[in-house]
Amino acid sequence: MKLLIKGAAILTMRHDAPFTGDILIDGSRIADIQPAIRDAGADEVIHAEGMAAMPGLINAHQHTPMSLLRGFSDDLKLMDWLEKKMFPAEARMTPEDIYWGAKLAMAEMIRSGTTAFADMYIHMNEIAAAVEETGMRASLTRGLVFTEDDGGRRMAEALDLIKRWSGKAEGRITTMLGPHSPYTVPPELWREVIRLAEQEDIPIHTHLAETVEEVALIRERYNQTPTEYLYHLGLFEKAHVLLAHSVHLNRRDIGYLRGMRGGAAHNPVSNLKLGCGIAPVSEMTEQGIAVGIGTDGAGSAATLDMFEEIRAAAWLQKLDYGDPAKLPAMEALRMATAGSASVLGIADEVGTLEAGKKADLILIDLRKPHLQPVHNLPSLLAYCAVGADVDTTIVNGRVLMRGRRLLTIDEDELLAQVSKRARRIVEGI
Amino acid sequence: MKLLIKGAAILTMRHDAPFTGDILIDGSRIADIQPAIRDAGADEVIHAEGMAAMPGLINAHQHTPMSLLRGFSDDLKLMDWLEKKMFPAEARMTPEDIYWGAKLAMAEMIRSGTTAFADMYIHMNEIAAAVEETGMRASLTRGLVFTEDDGGRRMAEALDLIKRWSGKAEGRITTMLGPHSPYTVPPELWREVIRLAEQEDIPIHTHLAETVEEVALIRERYNQTPTEYLYHLGLFEKAHVLLAHSVHLNRRDIGYLRGMRGGAAHNPVSNLKLGCGIAPVSEMTEQGIAVGIGTDGAGSAATLDMFEEIRAAAWLQKLDYGDPAKLPAMEALRMATAGSASVLGIADEVGTLEAGKKADLILIDLRKPHLQPVHNLPSLLAYCAVGADVDTTIVNGRVLMRGRRLLTIDEDELLAQVSKRARRIVEGI
Repeated sequence: MKLLIKGAAILTMRHDAPFTGDILIDGSRIADIQPAIRDAGADEVIHAEGMAAMPGLINAHQHTPMSLLRGFSDDLKLMDWLEKKMFPAEARMTPEDIYWGAKLAMAEMIRSGTTAFADMYIHMNEIAAAVEETGMRASLTRGLVFTEDDGGRRMAEALDLIKRWSGKAEGRITTMLGPHSPYTVPPELWREVIRLAEQEDIPIHTHLAETVEEVALIRERYNQTPTEYLYHLGLFEKAHVLLAHSVHLNRRDIGYLRGMRGGAAHNPVSNLKLGCGIAPVSEMTEQGIAVGIGTDGAGSAATLDMFEEIRAAAWLQKLDYGDPAKLPAMEALRMATAGSASVLGIADEVGTLEAGKKADLILIDLRKPHLQPVHNLPSLLAYCAVGADVDTTIVNGRVLMRGRRLLTIDEDELLAQVSKRARRIVEGI
Repeated sequence: MKLLIKGAAILTMRHDAPFTGDILIDGSRIADIQPAIRDAGADEVIHAEGMAAMPGLINAHQHTPMSLLRGFSDDLKLMDWLEKKMFPAEARMTPEDIYWGAKLAMAEMIRSGTTAFADMYIHMNEIAAAVEETGMRASLTRGLVFTEDDGGRRMAEALDLIKRWSGKAEGRITTMLGPHSPYTVPPELWREVIRLAEQEDIPIHTHLAETVEEVALIRERYNQTPTEYLYHLGLFEKAHVLLAHSVHLNRRDIGYLRGMRGGAAHNPVSNLKLGCGIAPVSEMTEQGIAVGIGTDGAGSAATLDMFEEIRAAAWLQKLDYGDPAKLPAMEALRMATAGSASVLGIADEVGTLEAGKKADLILIDLRKPHLQPVHNLPSLLAYCAVGADVDTTIVNGRVLMRGRRLLTIDEDELLAQVSKRARRIVEGI
């Protein structure tokens, strides 16, 4: 199956300058990108004049089923949010709810140009099944919170996920180990997870230094910063690590991360909306640490629109430095594509448009008042485009949305299921 | 002409709780809002099941023709932006360019749910003509920069705009006097403008304390803060004033504004993108000062999507206080509607949905993955909706957009004009 995209304004993210041209997809991979591809023998042609083509956005940190709790508990203090709203609601979620919540998130992601994501939650078999069906690419992690002894059940589920799903769904699914954070996992269990990760070469997905409260807690317990604490456990030396949030890192903390495999998943909207602070992403990238962008779960961040995260990331650096030149459009776009791909450990396969890579890409329709005139394509995409401007979403060479119509999800059935289940979950809370 | 909207989830902004019901529009005004309106004798019915109805958004500070320069000079230092890019490009703009640039902004505003705006620019006759045609509501101001003597030309144009256009276009156009800022207008001319404003009861639209550089400059010249300086000129006592930006105000400055007519136009995205800082909007509202929300011109802010500004306003207060409970969804929505209406001096007519007020309202289509489930309507509208979710825009009882199709603007002609003109304006700059 050969698919030819013709006449798009292409931003490969490998090179900075956009050019008008064609993209040939053969099976799951990009076969060619050129100003003009002739005689491609394509089975199907997408005429993309007036559209921009770029790599699919990669959401580097997510909790997909929390989309069922979107808007349920906004504007609350963090502990009220967690204890009075999130915990009781999550306790009512059945595996089937989780399947539909994850699918809701995937529908929103495909509709807003996200082609891959890193997810940490529970009941991961249901989420993996939804990934298989919807056609997305995902890095799946069973979250491990060792607040009390569970007889090894959580760890067994984590290992089962890895064994059962790693490399499955035409290679679209990868997996990680998910010790939740420095403050919810005791040191002996961190050591066990790190040993396992090193032995079996499994990447780790965790949360780091999201709030000042966390920093204070770790200081009290171990007289260290959260980053220092994980460093001394050997984490950054022994495993590929995805560090969600990474807000409260000082200069020395950033030094501990230098040379690490993986990197940080910046969640600017969640950090803003929960009043957590501004992550030092400029300092991290200056030290050669990969930074990707994620939304966090819709229970806190509200939407999964990565375009909004891209500009929020740029804005926060400009605000933090009082300098409009900080984190320019192209760099912010790169974070959400190639940057996230590095953090997920899939940069060899996706994150830029180039021949030989997997065909994960999106077409953005520019023929709209808010996307005209086209003086500067990266600027338009970073600061003006929204998810709703994405016309076509392609993952692994397969078209998942075309002309804003989802091709792998029955949206009517989805919204009916979501509405019914969401009502039941929050009733009386 | 009677128009009946049926079955919408209505957020009047007068009351906090949404309810499902009908809205009857008679001519330019809202005749009734009720859970069920029967026998209304409507000429036309809009079935709005699955949609939210709320007051149209009011953009409290704008430079519409700068939409022609969208994305032309992002990520630059402020002086490079102004001197190397904006000034040379603006110098090339003809009155006809201004007309098309303003119309581009109006197309984007109608498409993203904005029904009224405050505009400060030059060649205001062209902008007024575009307002008349497109059907929007606007407060128009000829910007006055007295950097050198112009023989009174600018002031004559300002007065001509007021005489010619105030109350025109079925009352949709109001006007203000526009001394640009404390640093671009000398004190003797400030006094002249304030005297005139007081005598003729004309409101004033100006910029205040956008950057730290401005604060330093005014300190050097007058040994005062910008706010203190305008206060001692008698501005806040003698006129209704629209204060754009108002970023760098200390506690004493806010005290000077207490009891003022008008208020501040907060521009969170522009302040973020230019790295200006966080305006003290919580402190201002706590002191009873009206705060509206605006986008600033698209030359700096990139888009005119007020939904994005609404959440950026909420985010910045949460970030500034480290408290997710600051500026909750409902308050942020109120700022962008009733708040902006107060700042524009049109709160008697618009800003809430109630019988007797002008029918300026929008319908937002909620039947989309990123707007489901509906746990909390204000939260969804403030944190999840984008301009593209607006289905219908009504101003002064007239439908300007329905089913996302513009009814007063030929979009194809507009985009062709804009593309051609924008290219010419920036060529070689």
